[in-house]
Amino acid sequence: MVVVLEKNITANQTLNIVKHLEEYGFRVHKTVGVQQTILAAIGVKPEFDTRKIKILDGVAEVYRITEPFKLASRQAKEDNTIIKIKNVTIGGDEIVVMAGPCAVESEDQINKIAELVSKNGAKILRGGAFKPRSSPYAFQGLGEEGLKLLKQAAEKYGLLVITEVMEIGQIELIGEYTDIYQVGARNMQNYSLLKELSKVNKPVFLKRGLSATIEEMLMSAEYILSNTNKDVILCERGIRTFETYTRNTFDLSSIPVVHKKSHLPIFADPSHATGMRDKVIPMARAAVAAGADGLMIEVHHDPDAALSDGPQALFPDQFSEMMRQIKLIAEAIGRKI
Amino acid sequence: MVVVLEKNITANQTLNIVKHLEEYGFRVHKTVGVQQTILAAIGVKPEFDTRKIKILDGVAEVYRITEPFKLASRQAKEDNTIIKIKNVTIGGDEIVVMAGPCAVESEDQINKIAELVSKNGAKILRGGAFKPRSSPYAFQGLGEEGLKLLKQAAEKYGLLVITEVMEIGQIELIGEYTDIYQVGARNMQNYSLLKELSKVNKPVFLKRGLSATIEEMLMSAEYILSNTNKDVILCERGIRTFETYTRNTFDLSSIPVVHKKSHLPIFADPSHATGMRDKVIPMARAAVAAGADGLMIEVHHDPDAALSDGPQALFPDQFSEMMRQIKLIAEAIGRKI
Amino acid sequence: MVVVLEKNITANQTLNIVKHLEEYGFRVHKTVGVQQTILAAIGVKPEFDTRKIKILDGVAEVYRITEPFKLASRQAKEDNTIIKIKNVTIGGDEIVVMAGPCAVESEDQINKIAELVSKNGAKILRGGAFKPRSSPYAFQGLGEEGLKLLKQAAEKYGLLVITEVMEIGQIELIGEYTDIYQVGARNMQNYSLLKELSKVNKPVFLKRGLSATIEEMLMSAEYILSNTNKDVILCERGIRTFETYTRNTFDLSSIPVVHKKSHLPIFADPSHATGMRDKVIPMARAAVAAGADGLMIEVHHDPDAALSDGPQALFPDQFSEMMRQIKLIAEAIGRKI
Amino acid sequence: MVVVLEKNITANQTLNIVKHLEEYGFRVHKTVGVQQTILAAIGVKPEFDTRKIKILDGVAEVYRITEPFKLASRQAKEDNTIIKIKNVTIGGDEIVVMAGPCAVESEDQINKIAELVSKNGAKILRGGAFKPRSSPYAFQGLGEEGLKLLKQAAEKYGLLVITEVMEIGQIELIGEYTDIYQVGARNMQNYSLLKELSKVNKPVFLKRGLSATIEEMLMSAEYILSNTNKDVILCERGIRTFETYTRNTFDLSSIPVVHKKSHLPIFADPSHATGMRDKVIPMARAAVAAGADGLMIEVHHDPDAALSDGPQALFPDQFSEMMRQIKLIAEAIGRKI
Repeated sequence: MVVVLEKNITANQTLNIVKHLEEYGFRVHKTVGVQQTILAAIGVKPEFDTRKIKILDGVAEVYRITEPFKLASRQAKEDNTIIKIKNVTIGGDEIVVMAGPCAVESEDQINKIAELVSKNGAKILRGGAFKPRSSPYAFQGLGEEGLKLLKQAAEKYGLLVITEVMEIGQIELIGEYTDIYQVGARNMQNYSLLKELSKVNKPVFLKRGLSATIEEMLMSAEYILSNTNKDVILCERGIRTFETYTRNTFDLSSIPVVHKKSHLPIFADPSHATGMRDKVIPMARAAVAAGADGLMIEVHHDPDAALSDGPQALFPDQFSEMMRQIKLIAEAIGRKI
Repeated sequence: MVVVLEKNITANQTLNIVKHLEEYGFRVHKTVGVQQTILAAIGVKPEFDTRKIKILDGVAEVYRITEPFKLASRQAKEDNTIIKIKNVTIGGDEIVVMAGPCAVESEDQINKIAELVSKNGAKILRGGAFKPRSSPYAFQGLGEEGLKLLKQAAEKYGLLVITEVMEIGQIELIGEYTDIYQVGARNMQNYSLLKELSKVNKPVFLKRGLSATIEEMLMSAEYILSNTNKDVILCERGIRTFETYTRNTFDLSSIPVVHKKSHLPIFADPSHATGMRDKVIPMARAAVAAGADGLMIEVHHDPDAALSDGPQALFPDQFSEMMRQIKLIAEAIGRKI
Repeated sequence: MVVVLEKNITANQTLNIVKHLEEYGFRVHKTVGVQQTILAAIGVKPEFDTRKIKILDGVAEVYRITEPFKLASRQAKEDNTIIKIKNVTIGGDEIVVMAGPCAVESEDQINKIAELVSKNGAKILRGGAFKPRSSPYAFQGLGEEGLKLLKQAAEKYGLLVITEVMEIGQIELIGEYTDIYQVGARNMQNYSLLKELSKVNKPVFLKRGLSATIEEMLMSAEYILSNTNKDVILCERGIRTFETYTRNTFDLSSIPVVHKKSHLPIFADPSHATGMRDKVIPMARAAVAAGADGLMIEVHHDPDAALSDGPQALFPDQFSEMMRQIKLIAEAIGRKI
Repeated sequence: MVVVLEKNITANQTLNIVKHLEEYGFRVHKTVGVQQTILAAIGVKPEFDTRKIKILDGVAEVYRITEPFKLASRQAKEDNTIIKIKNVTIGGDEIVVMAGPCAVESEDQINKIAELVSKNGAKILRGGAFKPRSSPYAFQGLGEEGLKLLKQAAEKYGLLVITEVMEIGQIELIGEYTDIYQVGARNMQNYSLLKELSKVNKPVFLKRGLSATIEEMLMSAEYILSNTNKDVILCERGIRTFETYTRNTFDLSSIPVVHKKSHLPIFADPSHATGMRDKVIPMARAAVAAGADGLMIEVHHDPDAALSDGPQALFPDQFSEMMRQIKLIAEAIGRKI
């Protein structure tokens, strides 16, 4: 931690600051500059609340020097985390596509979609059985019945399964059906849930919260990594800004940033980021071009009839076209799908 | 719902839009303007996803005309919701102060703070026993032991209790000790938790999420109101913006907005909004002046030694001074503390 | 400047960083911590672009230790800047109210409004003659004729004048009529304009840009102070956020922050911050309670007929009521109007 | 304009609203819904301030139905605007790259950079002669001398010139040297400047403001188009959000949005959007993949020695590599460079 002192600090104020630092367990090293003095507080305390020092008289600014996340950090593990689930490898050269409907609606629906997902080269079937909806009056998902239909369809077409878990009580049940647990954006800081998921033996797909910084996303990954689970896949899905012409602002810069700061793979979800299917193809291309390790895409055999999020689901033809285009982009940057 | 058509729409596109609206169960009423035509889609479907129409060719814009919340709306209930808990009335003329430490740390700590809270005219004792922390390595609260100490201290000094619930599994336990359930900002859209709280018979104190719009806060209140629970207290605690000199941006305009849109009382939490104790007093005054029905304040008998959030806790003398000042402000606007 | 090195930095990378720092003119002082080393770069170079170091291999983070503004800083000048213009004192105990219409529209209009502004205890008459409008098709102001009418009305009712300057070419003309130059939010970083205003001998009222941090507002003040002009009045008028129920988000926390960081007075403009007159009175009260040194308020004798911004202009009765209420708040916090 | 009335509106309130609408020149058409009534206000008044109606008692919501921009709108002009300057065509199939240093620093510097820009297939040389700097103490550019050097270098290597204009007084001078006027992000709403540029006969490159919505960017384009100038090139360069790991948030979704809403070409500037050169290549690729009509890139033969913005300038080798990669991406999506 670095403590910058005010120019006109008194000797007593400096003494008081040093005393506080020492009581909190730091060794203090002083550097006198031309106009200002700085104190280097030596000692590793990632959880230390720097405001405890910032609030003291005579302190101009305080900087934490260690990032608050450790296990998620590239400094802790230089090589990329590669996650292998059955025949699918996430985090390597291959760009992996997860696709499917917002929600599982019926056996017929999920089978039709699984077929088209598989036929076009995607490897993982997505679909919600428990849905977090902002209105208590909206469709809330089929529950366990949905999980069963999802797993059957995935097996029939040789796909893996990813589905969302919303609460601790669902972890065991969902674990019987899914290959990957999805944590939605609104639960990115549901620490109780994250702690429980740190103990499961399946990968967790962690979506960035609407207003979460990249650092906070990595801190939430840290929660999951802090126990036995070592497999976290991050996902950029748009952040909240002042712009109203799009549903969210798709922060694609987070992809190279995460690749620098962390060894974890990062996906992108252009369906939720833009909220409208006519924006999904260009933004899927952009995500791949920016270096995303995979995509999560909503697709429906009949989007007009979808029970939720139909407007952001691609039509089957659009999905095929998107897959065709991103394969070309992947090749252009030396990757494959 | 109002559908604005594009200027150069074709007859077939218009027919297709009307057909979709009718299939979704709306009656359609057309108004031809000078340059553009609008379709009024008649029928009450608050959960309808307007993007289903927006995505159709020829549609320029779609506006929902009913607010998505109903039970939380001033239109549904004209009179202010007044919540009486023992001898405390929330939502009336009186401005109610909830105060206490971030977390319950020990019997001695909570008793000392309860005494000073009570002595200065606050009515409700706050204190966390289960703490949502952004780092898995930080102090996570005393759990049930904390709840016991909190309740004992509150009873000793004639105070009510408010404490945070983080997950469904804690609801019953916490219910034995608290008068009001607090839902933290990060859980504002934890719909599983909100649904369970809609069935309890104690008021819920719902903090605005960091990136939640006022409308979303009211939708989360709607979740809680959608069952038997009728007592929700909202709380403004700052939103996330680009500004970095303050921890959050305290959106005090939300207070008159909520009072216009809803019958529910709204409090303000200047401690979390600003994150630094030297900003708490002016912002507490501002919140009362803006019309807040109450305040939630962090105070500690020894903030330097606090296990969490010490820098935003007031010193005892500051708390007394704040109470003195906000009493004057309350009188100036015809209210009392 | 403080440079934090990466944990696994090589000796050569460290040498390269030190070499760069020395070439840029800094002396370097190294502190070896438990896990990481930091370099203190000694030398005062407020304009140094810290990214030059941040981009080097082996650098984890770089912190500037001096604030980029100097003349605007409380460290440079401990006492509050008090600005006296004729019989009005800004920045002292008295809270000064500037009020008037968005735009000067006619002699009758500005006289009627000047009378009511004066009668209710405001000291300064505002009114635009040159209007920055987001649409090229909207009313653009009366120009010099507006300036004349404004000055005549102000003199008749014993008020000072404040009006907006939009471009360098207007400075001289406006100077003949106004007591204070107003720089609008959209011009807060129009550096060409600020530089010219650094040479005039009248105070400048600088409104915070929609997306300007407090630091950037103080940097813009620095531009104006960097020459002979020493009189800058800052103004909080709301920032752009994701919230849509209000026009802007009124960041009242900026008031105590500016008072701590700078010696310059800061006003608040609840009319532009909220954009709707029914929010103006509570937010005016809140601004005074938060410690604002003054208010800028839009008022019109007939808001329905106003040529611009009528919806945020108070009716005469509302203005009287607001003045009455903020006098009580001012007294409650030991100030006066 | 559509006016939604409150559920419990009185007959008198409705009459008053209709009266106001008619006085403002609208014809009114009423539609009675199940719970609420809406009024369609017929008449084209793009500059009408909808808050005039929103403020009336009994009004729940008001929606403008026409976009505020006209000449910039795709509805006004269906075909893409193609801008031809000498041998360069902007807005067609070809993706055009503008590249060069942040600022012109010397003859040697600009010549070296022009050579490398040209050699790698970029068509337009950028370089600032008048620099808007947030600190009054930072390098402000070489002025006219810089313009001369820029033009000479461009001619020598067969490039067009783009350079920034900051104030009205510079328009004529800069016009002697540049092929395209650049308006910087901070001047996007400097309406005085935009109005003057509406009369020049050279294209204007308009950068999106830090906190400007896409609609506001199009409104600023409208200002320039409102006179004789028909050639505006838009540029996405990142918006301000809460994220701090990147300088700005590069809103690439704006590219497909602008292509839908407007006929104007849109470029992207990954150098300013990310602020760090190691993010520029992936984000340049992403911009091209998203459909940008061109790129603006900062490159320097010796970034370490650059007088401004060195950290975001590519090294010569990186620039070559970027050009190579984006050519592949362009081909993948059926365009060329």
